[in-house]
Amino acid sequence: MKRSTTRIAAVMGEVHARIAARSYRAGTKIPSVRAMAQTLQVSVSTVLEAYERLVAEGVLYARPGSGFYVEGPVAPLALTELGPKLDREVDPLWISRQSLDTATDALKPGCGWLPPAWLYEAGVRKALRNVARASAAQLTEYASPHGHGPLRQFLSRRLAASGIDAAPEQIMLTESGTQAIDLICRFLLEPGDTVLVDDPCYFNFQALLKAHRVNVVGVPYRTTGADIEAFGAALAAHSPRLYITNSGIHNPTGATLSPVTAHRLLKLADACNLVIVEDDIFADFETTPAPRLAAFDGLSRVIQIGSFSKTVSASIRCGYVAARGDWIERLVDLKIATSFGGGRLAADIIHQAITDSGYRKHMERVRRRLNDERERTVPKLSALGIEPWTIPRAGMFLWCQLPERMDAAVLARTCLKDGVVLAPGNAFSQSLTAGDYLRFNVAQAGDGKLYEVLARAMNLCASR
Amino acid sequence: MKRSTTRIAAVMGEVHARIAARSYRAGTKIPSVRAMAQTLQVSVSTVLEAYERLVAEGVLYARPGSGFYVEGPVAPLALTELGPKLDREVDPLWISRQSLDTATDALKPGCGWLPPAWLYEAGVRKALRNVARASAAQLTEYASPHGHGPLRQFLSRRLAASGIDAAPEQIMLTESGTQAIDLICRFLLEPGDTVLVDDPCYFNFQALLKAHRVNVVGVPYRTTGADIEAFGAALAAHSPRLYITNSGIHNPTGATLSPVTAHRLLKLADACNLVIVEDDIFADFETTPAPRLAAFDGLSRVIQIGSFSKTVSASIRCGYVAARGDWIERLVDLKIATSFGGGRLAADIIHQAITDSGYRKHMERVRRRLNDERERTVPKLSALGIEPWTIPRAGMFLWCQLPERMDAAVLARTCLKDGVVLAPGNAFSQSLTAGDYLRFNVAQAGDGKLYEVLARAMNLCASR
Repeated sequence: MKRSTTRIAAVMGEVHARIAARSYRAGTKIPSVRAMAQTLQVSVSTVLEAYERLVAEGVLYARPGSGFYVEGPVAPLALTELGPKLDREVDPLWISRQSLDTATDALKPGCGWLPPAWLYEAGVRKALRNVARASAAQLTEYASPHGHGPLRQFLSRRLAASGIDAAPEQIMLTESGTQAIDLICRFLLEPGDTVLVDDPCYFNFQALLKAHRVNVVGVPYRTTGADIEAFGAALAAHSPRLYITNSGIHNPTGATLSPVTAHRLLKLADACNLVIVEDDIFADFETTPAPRLAAFDGLSRVIQIGSFSKTVSASIRCGYVAARGDWIERLVDLKIATSFGGGRLAADIIHQAITDSGYRKHMERVRRRLNDERERTVPKLSALGIEPWTIPRAGMFLWCQLPERMDAAVLARTCLKDGVVLAPGNAFSQSLTAGDYLRFNVAQAGDGKLYEVLARAMNLCASR
Repeated sequence: MKRSTTRIAAVMGEVHARIAARSYRAGTKIPSVRAMAQTLQVSVSTVLEAYERLVAEGVLYARPGSGFYVEGPVAPLALTELGPKLDREVDPLWISRQSLDTATDALKPGCGWLPPAWLYEAGVRKALRNVARASAAQLTEYASPHGHGPLRQFLSRRLAASGIDAAPEQIMLTESGTQAIDLICRFLLEPGDTVLVDDPCYFNFQALLKAHRVNVVGVPYRTTGADIEAFGAALAAHSPRLYITNSGIHNPTGATLSPVTAHRLLKLADACNLVIVEDDIFADFETTPAPRLAAFDGLSRVIQIGSFSKTVSASIRCGYVAARGDWIERLVDLKIATSFGGGRLAADIIHQAITDSGYRKHMERVRRRLNDERERTVPKLSALGIEPWTIPRAGMFLWCQLPERMDAAVLARTCLKDGVVLAPGNAFSQSLTAGDYLRFNVAQAGDGKLYEVLARAMNLCASR
């Protein structure tokens, strides 16, 4: 027996003993590899090997980026352990948590939202002062089952302006755009169903669908929308039940759907009885409106969802679903069962903010600033050999290719050490074919430090 | 062929023709039985029979309390169609929607929350004025993955006061208490698993569990907690994965768990590897604190959840989960995947309201008022022969038995016509063995009209 094998067995024995003695309890984190190596006076690699064997034995489990834990009395759902094992840098959940963790003062050019100073702070303050004087019922009661009436009436008019005929009864408010999609998934999907997404697509669609235990199939996304041939082939091959996409401005590419693609998509969907969720979260960023699938289809098989977190505030949670009346009725039942009544207050604050005359001016300013920042960012990235796949007409995103097939995940890991959070392409790509892409947010890419860090990291990666 | 048969066939033919002509489209509501009878100049019973045959044919479907719809292109999940068919009056979803529908100015002694004037309106107004001056980040940014830090720190201290040791990292904020339970179910349950609930229990537990497609088994609830023998037998017979219960004040009975029942429950749970969710939503109503399962167990297999909708405001959505650290990590992943970041603002408003010196006084007043109302309500109900199963030490509920096995569902239907929304016992009873019980909310039972309506309806029911 080799000495290293003996040492590994010794470490394993130590962990077993401590679990038996309940000094390491089920579900608790055990000491880090480094700490254990120091305690037992063995090498880090010995401890790592011991821990990994204990994982294989089912005694421990690893939580990426966190450490090793003692297996609990139950084996509950761990999203990070479903599906193929991903590098942390392209794990949707890891990227979300990294972006949400506001404690760090990292630069976040990979972040999917605007910096606080860009959002509608003045409108929110004004709305808060107003609601402080609202009725007791408004301040303390549940909303009605469909949600705050005035906001649904406003949305009905706004939808009509984009050619979508949705009565207020066909609109349900939710706590967020994500909750809206989640309720639709609960309504339409069974575990094992297949769902189509764009490749690349917003990474949280993948995390959400993972939680529903469905098969996710990506359809290549072109500058005018989904690749229609590939879409048709995917319909034939997988009989999907649902297709989730962005309307208006696509995340992560910034591209927009063309009318001809919209029409062909809907014809295919009709023939195959496919339901489509159109996420319209970036609507107010558009300068020239793109077609809406829901408008072409008349809310027959298309469901539109949206929220106000990208334009008004992400701190005030409110989203919506617009769909066929009978589907909305069933979605309301599901909403009540799984989150009971909605709140009136968030919807009221949002309603006041977006119907305030200042909101239009606020969004004009945001669109202008985004255009300016986009024009400034493109040449700065270009100087580093990072080239946009397309120049979006509007919105915050730039989907960019790295030079010479450089690995975006490796680059992201390197940049993180310098306090820069990037969004590597494969986090958005179901087929993992966007390994040399990055999504940039032009509203979060103004700081000169970003380009210094990028240049240094790219040099490091290129010299490997 | 009888003339009535011909007429029924004619109505069916009419509906078929209109669907074929797309004048009735998939998923839309068709004219009511009454309207159609008038249009076609036939009797109501002829139309009803025609519609019901079309339902049997799969051409239409009925939505209880709403009408008949054309079957859609997909057959999605309808909560109301899962499980045994229930009378509308004891259907948890129907009762929830009836209570949430604030457009009606009905009396709601069956409602599960306090009237607006009882909630912490002053504290909410003050907090709103304060947050109107908060930082831009506070007003517009997502919360951190676990949720607003100061509120989690406050909850950690509050839990410590009830003997529960939970670090702020072991607490995750959610949009509601219901969402907290929903995330736990997603985390722990697979379709087909068995879950124990109290019989009777809060009716929305049943609606929520239906959405998870699990088997629900009720364990008789006694005045000191679950019947221990029945609990043990249910564990042996069904190998449940989860038990969901209230701590503190039980809904609907108002009873409280005794230390001896708590201890026995946990011993059984330990032996069978059962996870327990303890819903602590009524904590602040207690006058003498009941034992907490989470305190006895040390948050090992017990998960505690709660919210502020019963004491501060239901309009500001905020709940929490306290659990083992590794479970919280996985629950955070699930929360991000299914509702993305939480809001800061709601949590901030709640935190300000409950840490305000006025909150303690507010709750003292609420508890005093509830005691007074309880003392007033019991004799008024007693005068009608409606007797409480137990006199709760605190809280808003009275679980009452009707005289002579009177049918509470029939009584509820009769009272609804007079604008009184009751909560019939079988809505709370998994075994449907509480048909002669009603849950009263003493804070919503002050209006003299209620007793007149009840007396009249009871006379009607008794004379049948």
